[in-house]
Amino acid sequence: MSTDNLLTTLNLTCPIVQAPMAGGATTPKLIAAVSNFGGLGSLGAGMTAPDTINEQINQIKALTDKPFAVNLMVLSAAESTTFDTSMPDWLSGYYQKASIEPVLADKPAQLFDEQFQVLLDNPVAVASFTFGIISQAQVDVLHAVGTKVVGTANHPLEAKAWADIGADAVCVQGAEAGGHRGGWLAQSEQDPMGLLVLISQTKAITDVPLIAAGGIMTADAIKAVQTAGAALAQMGTVFLTTTESGISATYKSELLKVANGQRDGRTRLTRLFSGKQARGLVNDYLEQFAAYDNTSLPAYPQLNAMTKPMRAAAAQASNPEYMSLWAGQGVSQVQALSVHELMTQLTGV
Amino acid sequence: MSTDNLLTTLNLTCPIVQAPMAGGATTPKLIAAVSNFGGLGSLGAGMTAPDTINEQINQIKALTDKPFAVNLMVLSAAESTTFDTSMPDWLSGYYQKASIEPVLADKPAQLFDEQFQVLLDNPVAVASFTFGIISQAQVDVLHAVGTKVVGTANHPLEAKAWADIGADAVCVQGAEAGGHRGGWLAQSEQDPMGLLVLISQTKAITDVPLIAAGGIMTADAIKAVQTAGAALAQMGTVFLTTTESGISATYKSELLKVANGQRDGRTRLTRLFSGKQARGLVNDYLEQFAAYDNTSLPAYPQLNAMTKPMRAAAAQASNPEYMSLWAGQGVSQVQALSVHELMTQLTGV
Repeated sequence: MSTDNLLTTLNLTCPIVQAPMAGGATTPKLIAAVSNFGGLGSLGAGMTAPDTINEQINQIKALTDKPFAVNLMVLSAAESTTFDTSMPDWLSGYYQKASIEPVLADKPAQLFDEQFQVLLDNPVAVASFTFGIISQAQVDVLHAVGTKVVGTANHPLEAKAWADIGADAVCVQGAEAGGHRGGWLAQSEQDPMGLLVLISQTKAITDVPLIAAGGIMTADAIKAVQTAGAALAQMGTVFLTTTESGISATYKSELLKVANGQRDGRTRLTRLFSGKQARGLVNDYLEQFAAYDNTSLPAYPQLNAMTKPMRAAAAQASNPEYMSLWAGQGVSQVQALSVHELMTQLTGV
Repeated sequence: MSTDNLLTTLNLTCPIVQAPMAGGATTPKLIAAVSNFGGLGSLGAGMTAPDTINEQINQIKALTDKPFAVNLMVLSAAESTTFDTSMPDWLSGYYQKASIEPVLADKPAQLFDEQFQVLLDNPVAVASFTFGIISQAQVDVLHAVGTKVVGTANHPLEAKAWADIGADAVCVQGAEAGGHRGGWLAQSEQDPMGLLVLISQTKAITDVPLIAAGGIMTADAIKAVQTAGAALAQMGTVFLTTTESGISATYKSELLKVANGQRDGRTRLTRLFSGKQARGLVNDYLEQFAAYDNTSLPAYPQLNAMTKPMRAAAAQASNPEYMSLWAGQGVSQVQALSVHELMTQLTGV
């Protein structure tokens, strides 16, 4: 029976994990600010080249001596290196109409094994994983370099699988959560569980310490998930609008518009951007191609790579309607604050 | 600023509301057992004829002198009395293939005004409402006969609307909840909010006391929603498998099979049974006609009346695959217990 949790073993002074958000949101400054406050900052490194991950780890270490996490996306070498399917017609049609040349990267995603090696060469306090599960041997080598291991689950069986290979904690991510869902079993996609249900059913089958994620925006919500049985609360969307966040001005502005009542805060779980379920603000792209969301789409990371030229062109043009505006259901409660101001509010310090 | 809540004004001794579940689940015995324990039992009377509602109220009053609630579905006279659309082809085709004569009732639903009159003639402690909102005048006449008024909301704006007309409390029903969703705004259907998010965003715009519903199955979950800011926890699915529940043996058996790992516990929000979003166990009917779920379907109560002959025939044949097996996402935690045993467990008495 595990009785400790990351709060105690890492000497965190507040029960807040800043969610790893790949794509540039989680700057070294953001992560260090969270960890220096006493929470656990996390680098969303899943889409980052190994050398850059190493550099960013060094940058964070220069800004804080407190523990922080690095998050990777578990993908096979085959998934990451080969375009094994062609672009859907509706997407080719979009590129043609928008006069954008869909130049694809040389490979759909970074190589997981190379990213993982960085964590062995330049160890961090916590390594967390999404999109799949690693092997027991990989957990063991991380433990051997002094790194705690955190898995991600959208379903109790995924949490159990992580517990069974010795994960130190599991992030249970409810359907409310923004961005990509971290699970991999079919059950995760077919009936996305609300956070409270997920905590309750996970506790019924494993005693691994839980980090609760999904729609948590306030001090009361943090206390609520702790009461439900989670050790820590993981929050993503609420950090996107902080001063230290690395998202584009366009993206940040759309999130704050929701909070100000200037934009519809409706979110949707969609596979249209990447091939894998993720929650974001409904925009023109999601509305225009909604009919294709439940069709057979190229899987992650294939479709993600295929929509990248579109997203890049939209970002370049400051056009939020063809960018991925990842956000959780709690988005209407974002605020423009520094990390210190936000965490002071969340912890009632 | 309202500071009291139903817990104090009704002298409840435990923070549990047994959800109103129309269709026979909420027997007078079940309701009285909940209220006698110190919670708030609720009669799901939305689909019941006025005379029968009156009789059932008398039966409950004979079994308990404690407060209980009666729940009605807010429908217009036009919606309730006229079949204004024809049966979808796929459903006609099903009836033909199954050799079932789809004999429709003389009207799609009971008349709300006649049901409402019963609550004035034979007053109860609490009147609760789903599917729509009543008028301020109707709230006033209920108050005049000593009845507290509870609305149902799936979206913060619906809760606000109930608060604005003087409701004494609002049941905020998260996406996790089984059975029909009680809201009526387009936002409720487009982005069904998880319970914690719904509580948090509702508290941000109104101080009306909240009853939290959706996936709550355990003592810890009750405490969690109270920590999040709800006054009471409303639970439905967990009462369906009690000894006092009035659901069919077939339905009860399928729910318990999920808890025993003998049936997939996957649920789905679907409009295929009634025209209005409701959550139930995935069965052959939902799989077979899944492609029609997001098409233009006859609205509630039209489609509900049209699928009734199918559901009745399936119930007659003890065939769960063409019955509506309403259940929340917490369904895997149901137990075969008496109400007294269940509530003892939930309250730690």
